[in-house]
Amino acid sequence: MPVEFAVGVDFGGTSAKVGLVGRGGEILGRDLVEIDPRADFRHIVDPVADRIRALVRRSVPGGRPLAVGLGTPGFVDSRTGVVMSGAENIPALKGNSVAAALGEALGLPAFADNDATCAAAGELCFGAGKSLRHFALVTLGTGVGGGLVLDGRVYRGSRGFAGEIGHICLDPGGLWCNCGSRGCLEQYASAPAIARIFREKLGKREREAWEPTAKDVFQRAAQGDPEARDAVEEAARSLAQAFGTLLNVLNLEAFLIGGGVSQAGEQLCAPVRRHLPDFTWPTLARETRILTAALLNDAGLLGAAATAYDRIS
Amino acid sequence: MPVEFAVGVDFGGTSAKVGLVGRGGEILGRDLVEIDPRADFRHIVDPVADRIRALVRRSVPGGRPLAVGLGTPGFVDSRTGVVMSGAENIPALKGNSVAAALGEALGLPAFADNDATCAAAGELCFGAGKSLRHFALVTLGTGVGGGLVLDGRVYRGSRGFAGEIGHICLDPGGLWCNCGSRGCLEQYASAPAIARIFREKLGKREREAWEPTAKDVFQRAAQGDPEARDAVEEAARSLAQAFGTLLNVLNLEAFLIGGGVSQAGEQLCAPVRRHLPDFTWPTLARETRILTAALLNDAGLLGAAATAYDRIS
Repeated sequence: MPVEFAVGVDFGGTSAKVGLVGRGGEILGRDLVEIDPRADFRHIVDPVADRIRALVRRSVPGGRPLAVGLGTPGFVDSRTGVVMSGAENIPALKGNSVAAALGEALGLPAFADNDATCAAAGELCFGAGKSLRHFALVTLGTGVGGGLVLDGRVYRGSRGFAGEIGHICLDPGGLWCNCGSRGCLEQYASAPAIARIFREKLGKREREAWEPTAKDVFQRAAQGDPEARDAVEEAARSLAQAFGTLLNVLNLEAFLIGGGVSQAGEQLCAPVRRHLPDFTWPTLARETRILTAALLNDAGLLGAAATAYDRIS
Repeated sequence: MPVEFAVGVDFGGTSAKVGLVGRGGEILGRDLVEIDPRADFRHIVDPVADRIRALVRRSVPGGRPLAVGLGTPGFVDSRTGVVMSGAENIPALKGNSVAAALGEALGLPAFADNDATCAAAGELCFGAGKSLRHFALVTLGTGVGGGLVLDGRVYRGSRGFAGEIGHICLDPGGLWCNCGSRGCLEQYASAPAIARIFREKLGKREREAWEPTAKDVFQRAAQGDPEARDAVEEAARSLAQAFGTLLNVLNLEAFLIGGGVSQAGEQLCAPVRRHLPDFTWPTLARETRILTAALLNDAGLLGAAATAYDRIS
């Protein structure tokens, strides 16, 4: 029997990671395509299509992918694959669908989703969500992204914009967010937010001498630094508030934390678990699992391929 | 062709409204069964089953219902129909499933859901949600309830507890709620909350002389009373914050407002619409409809029957 595989394209601002991914999440081949952000649309799409063809010939001779899945930051219309925002650095993408153009060039069904929604698909297909039917995947990095799996399927909402967990309003009089609203989770639990919360607790001299990262904060907290521990605690409490709201509304089984900050593992999950009962019914909180996501470095690629599997199923 | 109909049971604390409901939402017959809250389980279920049999014989002679749907306040395990909480006034219900017992007595498939989830099913089948695939139904009354329709189906979550929109946390330092958490929407937009907000704006003398209801507040606001208008504005802003969170997470097409407070109609919907862009992306806010629910007095009965249709489809 010929091997079944899908193409995953993790489409970023300066490059596209391309991979051929089997049903079990095994990566059969991979490539990296540089993207010239000033190129016109065809000169962005064609090289990616060429490299996918070459990759298939090289890695699965005689094989034919089932479909193409593409993940990209920002708002993606999941029906058309058009990136609605968040791709300002590549003007040629505006109003165009890379997924549709790739699908046409390769003669394959092709689908696009926001990268965090792809990450949720990845966990469902290959990762920590394989045995779950209702969960939220939250990526904590430069921003806070989210994807949902409801009733065993990736949930996209009416136009594909669902899962913007980073913009749950935690405090209507809170910090202004890049999205234009106030008090969004992203301002309290992203990597820069955790670093900012910690810095605000430092003395003036130390604050001026040092630009700590979120990783530094977790390291210091592990060493017992009280300001760092307080910063982790505050970020965890903000996450717990958002998770409580999601639990009350969606009756999920689990939250999977991904993105760079998730390297903190139990150092972050444990305090989130501890604060959760303040924001939902204690029995619901007890029944709900807070875990780190299973897919790490290749989450983007695997998620994009999983999106293809989810959409053709 | 014999007429197709389902049994809807709107199961409250002191009585059960029973109705036979056709595919188009027509009520073919109805009855009201008093419930003795101190009776044992069989003495609660058997009279309801007897009255349903009699109602079918009387209203649809020779007819056979497709299924039974039952709506009830509180947490309902949608798989078993067991009421997990919110039925404290009828001790015999604890750990038992009225729906399962009714289904067995009548030889019919039977299903139970929380009443607000049933109301969402009712709007989907028969009401303002017929042409929608993604919406939230919010009931504003003594409390704030909610039900979700996602991807064209009623959404229940992992155990049937989804849709607790009234317990979205709007302010982590806000008012204590009956649920044990702080700052829940219910404390800012239920009928008693609207009355309370208004009372707090009155002078001491007026406050002591008068116990206004939410209806009074809307009436006064319509007459131009500034305190009443402010109270409506505040409640609408709280609703807008919760709706913004739901939009960001679920990318819905519409919110349907039901329950007693929804009689205010545009007097409530218009300010919610006006505040919504402060809590989500302005384009999402513009694309989203804020409407009153279509099913009024018979929402409970129709919702319960719609739950039966939804579950057998």
